[in-house]
Amino acid sequence: MRARVFVTLKPGVLDPQGKAIGHALNSLGFKSVGDVRQGKVIDLELAETDREKASASLRDMCEKLLANTVIEKYDIELRS
Amino acid sequence: MRARVFVTLKPGVLDPQGKAIGHALNSLGFKSVGDVRQGKVIDLELAETDREKASASLRDMCEKLLANTVIEKYDIELRS
Repeated sequence: MRARVFVTLKPGVLDPQGKAIGHALNSLGFKSVGDVRQGKVIDLELAETDREKASASLRDMCEKLLANTVIEKYDIELRS
Repeated sequence: MRARVFVTLKPGVLDPQGKAIGHALNSLGFKSVGDVRQGKVIDLELAETDREKASASLRDMCEKLLANTVIEKYDIELRS
């Protein structure tokens, strides 16, 4: 089973990297660009075939390693 | 209009960061984890309201700044 995990900064947490991207895009002439936030996407290949178990295991991975839950939130997407 | 851009390494390009995450997860006891790849996700706020124009503009941003198209590919997702 394949899974995709999104790790993004919580709203309100300062994102200097996103700001830099926004400024760079504006400088390049993309004037319609407003707020920009950057996060991580992690694609995992899992041997687990049960969706419930895979989902629980992924939440556990996020809490323990993939996300810093003080400042980041995570979303899990399962693909068959 | 909100947009989300995924920038991920092309298949075949070595991903040491993904490998490190995979090893760390295995060490933590998540034995069902196989291949892991890490990429970037960029959330943008656009003033543009026309979907066609927004999409064309985002492709342009990816080619010019957001992705290194030699080793990375990008996917664009528009949200109303």
